[in-house]
Amino acid sequence: MARRRSGVTVPEGFLAAGVEAGVKRFGRKDIGLIFSTVPAVTVGVLTTNRIVAAPVVLMREQLRGGTARAIIANSGNANCCTGAMGLLDARETAREVAKLLRVPGRQVLVASTGVIGRRLPMPRILRALPMLVGSLHRGGGADVARAIMTTDTVPKEASAVVRLGRRTIRIGAVAKGSGMVQPHMATMLAFITTDASLTRQVAQRALCLAADRTFNRITVDGDTSTNDAAVLMANGLAGGAKIGSSGSVFEQFAQALETVCRQLAQMIARDGEGATRLIEVAVEGARTPQEADGVARRVANSPLVKTMVTGGDPNWGRLAAAVGSSNAQIDPERLVMRCESGRRGGGGLAVFRRGMVLPTDRATGRRLLQEPVVRFRIQLGAGRHETVMWTCDLTEGYIRINAKYST
Amino acid sequence: MARRRSGVTVPEGFLAAGVEAGVKRFGRKDIGLIFSTVPAVTVGVLTTNRIVAAPVVLMREQLRGGTARAIIANSGNANCCTGAMGLLDARETAREVAKLLRVPGRQVLVASTGVIGRRLPMPRILRALPMLVGSLHRGGGADVARAIMTTDTVPKEASAVVRLGRRTIRIGAVAKGSGMVQPHMATMLAFITTDASLTRQVAQRALCLAADRTFNRITVDGDTSTNDAAVLMANGLAGGAKIGSSGSVFEQFAQALETVCRQLAQMIARDGEGATRLIEVAVEGARTPQEADGVARRVANSPLVKTMVTGGDPNWGRLAAAVGSSNAQIDPERLVMRCESGRRGGGGLAVFRRGMVLPTDRATGRRLLQEPVVRFRIQLGAGRHETVMWTCDLTEGYIRINAKYST
Repeated sequence: MARRRSGVTVPEGFLAAGVEAGVKRFGRKDIGLIFSTVPAVTVGVLTTNRIVAAPVVLMREQLRGGTARAIIANSGNANCCTGAMGLLDARETAREVAKLLRVPGRQVLVASTGVIGRRLPMPRILRALPMLVGSLHRGGGADVARAIMTTDTVPKEASAVVRLGRRTIRIGAVAKGSGMVQPHMATMLAFITTDASLTRQVAQRALCLAADRTFNRITVDGDTSTNDAAVLMANGLAGGAKIGSSGSVFEQFAQALETVCRQLAQMIARDGEGATRLIEVAVEGARTPQEADGVARRVANSPLVKTMVTGGDPNWGRLAAAVGSSNAQIDPERLVMRCESGRRGGGGLAVFRRGMVLPTDRATGRRLLQEPVVRFRIQLGAGRHETVMWTCDLTEGYIRINAKYST
Repeated sequence: MARRRSGVTVPEGFLAAGVEAGVKRFGRKDIGLIFSTVPAVTVGVLTTNRIVAAPVVLMREQLRGGTARAIIANSGNANCCTGAMGLLDARETAREVAKLLRVPGRQVLVASTGVIGRRLPMPRILRALPMLVGSLHRGGGADVARAIMTTDTVPKEASAVVRLGRRTIRIGAVAKGSGMVQPHMATMLAFITTDASLTRQVAQRALCLAADRTFNRITVDGDTSTNDAAVLMANGLAGGAKIGSSGSVFEQFAQALETVCRQLAQMIARDGEGATRLIEVAVEGARTPQEADGVARRVANSPLVKTMVTGGDPNWGRLAAAVGSSNAQIDPERLVMRCESGRRGGGGLAVFRRGMVLPTDRATGRRLLQEPVVRFRIQLGAGRHETVMWTCDLTEGYIRINAKYST
């Protein structure tokens, strides 16, 4: 139990655990638990999919309470499109965990991720709960990170320690996500803990700001999950006065939260199913935030742009086609596009200007597209709004055709 | 020259040819020509991409004239994002073909498809034009079909012979398209000929109606091309009075035109890059046409729905996630979804009802998903609008993970 504190157990007063219940196939952790030793102000941003999973329905209800003690999450089964029985299963899970933790049932949030449309194997889950609760410990962050993985190839944790005036606060977080990723107001699953002292309103505002700039800026395949949920628990154990809703202390906290969320969001995009590279799409000079978002999303979801990166095969016209097909007002004469390395000092190349794809050095283009992080910078020249989205390349198959199309 | 008349050369008074100019790699036809022996009323629907190729700019200008004699199309190079020089290249091509055909330059439309962002190899094209014009013949429909292929694996032609009162009219058509396919007001390239007698207004109306129900209802990868164009040439050589803009004769003609266009649209979707199956997404009971379209497009563009078909692995929850993520008002309690064989008598299966994914027979589900045509019928129960979209499965790679995800 002398394990390093990581992810959600970095802040004071948070314990975690992850065990194998048999929801996923043999030999893999599949239920995780995060527990705050004192009641924590708890807020969330949940999926905007019109079809929502049972645990999300329950979580919406529970988040109205404003505080929570624990989150239990399983992978391998999304408990979605499972009707009234699915909701009963989620409630029973919350109730049983609450009993073991000796806290009120409404203070235990439930989250699920995995296959849609199958009942949870409740006997297996209930049987595993005592062991799960019994193994809560300060080094359990990494166990939760493993327990919520589905097709993820790496666990995803991030944390920050921030000096706010005279106190030091900590933020810890865990996420999962690899496919069915185009979050809308939330991501797949992300649980964030902090020992900062926050009111519910301030916590909600900071989380919405951060989610909007991080989790809502990634896409793997353009599919929005029915189970998306990002939850922030703030237990106040770092001490000090509550952080206000504006001013420099709020800004510093919000900034740190955003940084932690961005790290997780990038990890999710980089670990997209089958991906080998992270792609950053930076849009500048848009007339409105909506047009910036529309262009970035169009490029980030274009299979032809993604396969160009996969094949390392410069075919800049695909960028132009994707930008032009968005709903934004585009003036090709003002549009400037660059391909850059995501590494500092990794160089870049102008690829489009004055309505034309520029003749570029092919070797440089190929090198840039083979960097682990590829950035497309799209300057619309129409206004002053900007945004960034992260996605990944799309590998093989469809790709065997497209990656080599221009050669 | 005794070849069977097919595609665009089925109607009276149309000749065609296709030769190798060296735009594509060695041994493949890459320029095609369609010629009407008399001036033909000519209308088109062109891409709505904000970035348009030079030939599309020129075509917009030429279509204002209302009649044309010929269309020259090349594959292997889209002549897009090529600036002022690209436009000059398109004009020069039209002018040289017109000279050889002894018709006015403004009566020759130019279309291009292929890589975006490279200058056309004009010397090669100009050198090939005399041979192209010299080989125009009544059996040339099939040659044009080959000459405009890019990643297409099969040439795409369709035709119809229709008895309209006392006359018989013919409609012939050719199309290409396999990737960068999500037409918006037009498709990749489709050229349709008819010997029916039409005014420009009637021709435009019939083409818009047909394109909206056929070419605009397909997607391969959600990428909208910069070169999309569907053009209808009507030379009136079947004789008889001009077809009016309404009434049963117009309806019959419009119906036949739509059937021809639908055949081509389905051929394009079925020949999507890497595809093995045609997927039909039928949406019924929508509140508005826009909501019907939104749901159908969301499902047809979902990589997770497509890979479910690839793997023949029933995972109906993915349909629910895709439907729920559209902008339509969805009431899960009223939503009913079925998976059906596209074959008459091939059977079907209800997969979602009353907010729940239904427990279905796995063997039947697998069989249905392995049919050459898979239909998803989505009944929203919210109104009386409906639509259909066609797409294809998405194979390998990304897919190796997703196709087997639920097992």
